[in-house]
Amino acid sequence: MDERIRVAVLAATGAVGQRFVSLLTDHPWFEVAVVTGSGRSAGRQYGEAVNWVVPGEIPAGVADLTVQPTNVAALEGEGVRLVFSALPSGVAREAEPEMARAGFVVCSNASALRMEPDVPLLIPEINADHVKLIEAQRARRNWEGLIVTSPNCSTTGIVFPLKALDDAFGLSQVHAVTMQAISGAGYPGVASFDILDNVIPYIKGEEEKVESEPRKLLGRLEGDAIRMADFVVSAQTHRVPVMDGHLAAMSVGLEREASPGEVREALAAFRGPEIVRGLPSAPTHPMIVREEPDRPQPRRDRDAEAGMAITVGRVQPCPVLDVKLVSLVHNTLRGAAGGAILNAELLVASGYLAASD
Amino acid sequence: MDERIRVAVLAATGAVGQRFVSLLTDHPWFEVAVVTGSGRSAGRQYGEAVNWVVPGEIPAGVADLTVQPTNVAALEGEGVRLVFSALPSGVAREAEPEMARAGFVVCSNASALRMEPDVPLLIPEINADHVKLIEAQRARRNWEGLIVTSPNCSTTGIVFPLKALDDAFGLSQVHAVTMQAISGAGYPGVASFDILDNVIPYIKGEEEKVESEPRKLLGRLEGDAIRMADFVVSAQTHRVPVMDGHLAAMSVGLEREASPGEVREALAAFRGPEIVRGLPSAPTHPMIVREEPDRPQPRRDRDAEAGMAITVGRVQPCPVLDVKLVSLVHNTLRGAAGGAILNAELLVASGYLAASD
Amino acid sequence: MDERIRVAVLAATGAVGQRFVSLLTDHPWFEVAVVTGSGRSAGRQYGEAVNWVVPGEIPAGVADLTVQPTNVAALEGEGVRLVFSALPSGVAREAEPEMARAGFVVCSNASALRMEPDVPLLIPEINADHVKLIEAQRARRNWEGLIVTSPNCSTTGIVFPLKALDDAFGLSQVHAVTMQAISGAGYPGVASFDILDNVIPYIKGEEEKVESEPRKLLGRLEGDAIRMADFVVSAQTHRVPVMDGHLAAMSVGLEREASPGEVREALAAFRGPEIVRGLPSAPTHPMIVREEPDRPQPRRDRDAEAGMAITVGRVQPCPVLDVKLVSLVHNTLRGAAGGAILNAELLVASGYLAASD
Amino acid sequence: MDERIRVAVLAATGAVGQRFVSLLTDHPWFEVAVVTGSGRSAGRQYGEAVNWVVPGEIPAGVADLTVQPTNVAALEGEGVRLVFSALPSGVAREAEPEMARAGFVVCSNASALRMEPDVPLLIPEINADHVKLIEAQRARRNWEGLIVTSPNCSTTGIVFPLKALDDAFGLSQVHAVTMQAISGAGYPGVASFDILDNVIPYIKGEEEKVESEPRKLLGRLEGDAIRMADFVVSAQTHRVPVMDGHLAAMSVGLEREASPGEVREALAAFRGPEIVRGLPSAPTHPMIVREEPDRPQPRRDRDAEAGMAITVGRVQPCPVLDVKLVSLVHNTLRGAAGGAILNAELLVASGYLAASD
Repeated sequence: MDERIRVAVLAATGAVGQRFVSLLTDHPWFEVAVVTGSGRSAGRQYGEAVNWVVPGEIPAGVADLTVQPTNVAALEGEGVRLVFSALPSGVAREAEPEMARAGFVVCSNASALRMEPDVPLLIPEINADHVKLIEAQRARRNWEGLIVTSPNCSTTGIVFPLKALDDAFGLSQVHAVTMQAISGAGYPGVASFDILDNVIPYIKGEEEKVESEPRKLLGRLEGDAIRMADFVVSAQTHRVPVMDGHLAAMSVGLEREASPGEVREALAAFRGPEIVRGLPSAPTHPMIVREEPDRPQPRRDRDAEAGMAITVGRVQPCPVLDVKLVSLVHNTLRGAAGGAILNAELLVASGYLAASD
Repeated sequence: MDERIRVAVLAATGAVGQRFVSLLTDHPWFEVAVVTGSGRSAGRQYGEAVNWVVPGEIPAGVADLTVQPTNVAALEGEGVRLVFSALPSGVAREAEPEMARAGFVVCSNASALRMEPDVPLLIPEINADHVKLIEAQRARRNWEGLIVTSPNCSTTGIVFPLKALDDAFGLSQVHAVTMQAISGAGYPGVASFDILDNVIPYIKGEEEKVESEPRKLLGRLEGDAIRMADFVVSAQTHRVPVMDGHLAAMSVGLEREASPGEVREALAAFRGPEIVRGLPSAPTHPMIVREEPDRPQPRRDRDAEAGMAITVGRVQPCPVLDVKLVSLVHNTLRGAAGGAILNAELLVASGYLAASD
Repeated sequence: MDERIRVAVLAATGAVGQRFVSLLTDHPWFEVAVVTGSGRSAGRQYGEAVNWVVPGEIPAGVADLTVQPTNVAALEGEGVRLVFSALPSGVAREAEPEMARAGFVVCSNASALRMEPDVPLLIPEINADHVKLIEAQRARRNWEGLIVTSPNCSTTGIVFPLKALDDAFGLSQVHAVTMQAISGAGYPGVASFDILDNVIPYIKGEEEKVESEPRKLLGRLEGDAIRMADFVVSAQTHRVPVMDGHLAAMSVGLEREASPGEVREALAAFRGPEIVRGLPSAPTHPMIVREEPDRPQPRRDRDAEAGMAITVGRVQPCPVLDVKLVSLVHNTLRGAAGGAILNAELLVASGYLAASD
Repeated sequence: MDERIRVAVLAATGAVGQRFVSLLTDHPWFEVAVVTGSGRSAGRQYGEAVNWVVPGEIPAGVADLTVQPTNVAALEGEGVRLVFSALPSGVAREAEPEMARAGFVVCSNASALRMEPDVPLLIPEINADHVKLIEAQRARRNWEGLIVTSPNCSTTGIVFPLKALDDAFGLSQVHAVTMQAISGAGYPGVASFDILDNVIPYIKGEEEKVESEPRKLLGRLEGDAIRMADFVVSAQTHRVPVMDGHLAAMSVGLEREASPGEVREALAAFRGPEIVRGLPSAPTHPMIVREEPDRPQPRRDRDAEAGMAITVGRVQPCPVLDVKLVSLVHNTLRGAAGGAILNAELLVASGYLAASD
């Protein structure tokens, strides 16, 4: 008897949706029971409707599912309790609250609700305790279900070293320049005509996310709200001709003085809280510190710990702020589908999603 | 009768040397009379010895020259008065002073002598007046000839907007993250095995140059020395899979407050001094300000004004320092060979190199 | 008084349309008077409506034109006599004949009518005499205007060496494997998600064109029809991560035996007919033969003769057919807009388009 | 007790050598006991001497080994019986026979001895029976050890479909145009300056290998020699900006007529001999036939079956020969280190290498 939790993947035909489907194959706790898509694909077999662009083949069990429209009705009667959302932000803003109201647990990768005061913006290793914000969410909204969100892919790469530095020395200012992979724009996403032999110094809406989300992630849960951390972030985001892996060149101002050696130690000592360690998708080392002068690199480091580890390096004193470093995240694994799945695992571990009914 | 000044190109078979040869074809003031190379190529015909990697064909008049060894003897008896150096730094440190001592005017692209107190580090639009440092150089060293140097390619892209901002508002702090083209590493340079589908967050020796050279370029000539400008620069340099064009994401702290509009105006108003404007290689607009949200881009903007204009854009307020912007330079044209040729033209215009004997 | 012929560019906002606009700037015989576009752009200023993706800036004179809908009415009253079409094939099939009927001279880059028996498929250096097929076209269709077409971009690269070999030795069989640039797919065209670090062994409809068009181009005008040449072509077409320049690896069976040396001579001797040589867009050397073992290369050879010359190389005996070689064409210049403009120039030179009314 | 066969990897610091080291980690039958390198690295720890460029980290057990010089003495006293050679051809020609003479079993990826009449050129699924040529080798050379070789990486991709077609219909002529990944040139290999935004239509020595090796692989073992198959191969080889995966566009002349459907069936039915199927590195499906019009693609198909399966597709009738198709091989896995390891496994299975002493 399979006791796995039946899940739905919303917008399952897109690039991030495909990553969800791919990562959930053989997941020990979850199994894909429903896939949804837009008008064009709804009603067709998933294997026919999808233009499969992620590595590997379409999982056999999912290929045969009929793509459903993205609404509550499609989830009911299927035994689904957990929903992974790869919806575009505009659609997510309406659809996700309806599902939470109808009793579903929604783990969303969309940006729509990330900054809502009563919606946890969650990375288990960073702020697992923010999960308790769900109490306020349910109280205020009278939902049977719930919504938790995962941050922007670039935010994810940046916030790991920030967390370690904040804990050890306090943060005052952060300057981050990202070099982001084309997979971050989904499919078809960036035209090759635009990005071959080129860099594009602009990603719509991205700088705003990178400047605000870290302050919520590193904020403090006080009563029924998150008090935003009070450091300042300045971001400049770029698209580069790389398939996967967002690199960020960071410069950080600290509240207490620290030598590069102390910074390196603080980074290397980072583990995240106990509750995360046994989770199926949790990396053994959530943040890897490399000592070589030329690492991290997207192609060489993005797949560390199955794409779930952040890799940092090039820790140096900064003449303007205090310390410089470079951070890398696999944007569609840890930075999108993998991060949302780890969030769902945390919900199970913290009792917000029963392992079986 | 051709009255053009006969010039030598040192290390003419390398990638920057080839750019010199290519740009000097049909130059109205200069003509290539001597090309030098390392032991492997010396004695062979240039057209045979060179692995021509820059656009266009090898200029016919140069293809037939015999490659000479890089020393004073090779220049004598050829009527050469001007020398363009694309030498590696280690070789330049010995060879260039010997040539200056022997009476040659040396315009060097090498880093060896850039920071010497009595050697001008020159960009005509930025600090044409530093050319007078030559007086001190000659007095101290007792040279008949002289040496002027051009800065690192990334420095060049960064210092144009810095100059405009310094003049208008004063500079306090600069943070610069570069994304540099592979041509900056010469030939063969960066292995495709390292850079395809990748970014390398390290270029040996580059951050040091970008952190120090702007302070000399924007310094003040006081008596027989340059007083370094007193702002601070922090640099993080990256290699990206782009052929030509170094992009820099910059954040700048100003001494006087300025709105983004005032910053844009100050940038757009930049012209450089009168003496530069008629020079053969001088761009009509040395710095182009683009208003589109996604410019400058290396492939689309590097060739502006025959690769001699800097292009800036994305002027925004910076939450950490004062203003953010992005700057682009064609690294092998304005940032290397083209810059050194413009320096030589300035030497003619300012009387340090007679147009004819 | 400007006596240049006023022209319209159909589908002027697309990638090939932009190349037309760019190449026609400062053309000695033609000037752009009308630009047309699809419903989305019609009525807007060209400079606003276009997402300019080709090198250089939007020509000032064209940026201010209002984009017209693509129909006969838009051309009338503007003094236009010549029309360059970058229309998609489906639209071209209807619109181009209507314009020819209304008296316009249409030089089309679309594939729709290329293989019509009474429509010349034209490359001036290859089959300038096919222009006389216009007589049959007018007789049969009762048009005041006319249509001539230019071939597929890959066909163009292949047919130059084939013409030289056919004239010298006769052709029996041709095998061609193309490696095509992403600009050939227009804008946005190929997703970077599909082509970065990849090759796609399929271009919809391309192999059929490459297998049929060369037989018409090298066919013989007999009375009021073209008798197709009777050699056989087999094509395999691929997309590669290159911006511009289609490379073709060819193997050719000849009717008369020929050594590689004789083949090289026949290729090098190719000039095209007298009538083409003085035309404004005609390259001095329409086909360049390179002797280096590793040429032609797309990035290094595509811009030869302003992108209007074909470059061939690697001539070797073929163990299966008779001779192997590699050919390169700049796909959006010679292979698209530039080729159609040269066709129009031929129409002027051969009296089908009066230089002035 | 570990009963694994102790092996040496020759030229272990190069790109193919690293693939050997990587693939042999956790191999059930073999364990790396000795690594050799050139003068520069000999005497240093492998982890220090190697510039690790293949995915994953340096295996801990190998990182600590001291790099040995490449000679017989380095192998003796270490309990080594099996040697994997990634030597350059010039060195292999001397070193490999010495090792075979000294009693070692040498599985070589070098080209030096591939076409020697008494040296098996081996792909287990293609010509496992050629292993018996070892008898003639030992008889003639009086070696205690032996040498088997694996073919060129492009040959490997081409010969799988050829084998299936030869068995089913007989082969007369083969035309193959390859598009090869940059990893095939080793490290540093192809300069990014040469290959970014480019294709290079030349790989030194490659066409000769692709034209000759398939005839030996598909030849027949007759007595103490291989009788070469009598079909003819014509090859044109290209380098493309792809990391891994060599694609070949093939056109094949058959001895018996066959429809595309029959050809597809013959390809899909290919399995290879019984003896190969249980081997640790053998793929379940050695040749995968894809039906989509745009497959195989290097990035999407190279990792099929851990990089050990060939993927073919685009089976179509050929107007010049009989059938066209496209084939893909992972050049450094199946086409190099993986292929040589599978050869060694075949030697164990066929009794030429005892599983334990």
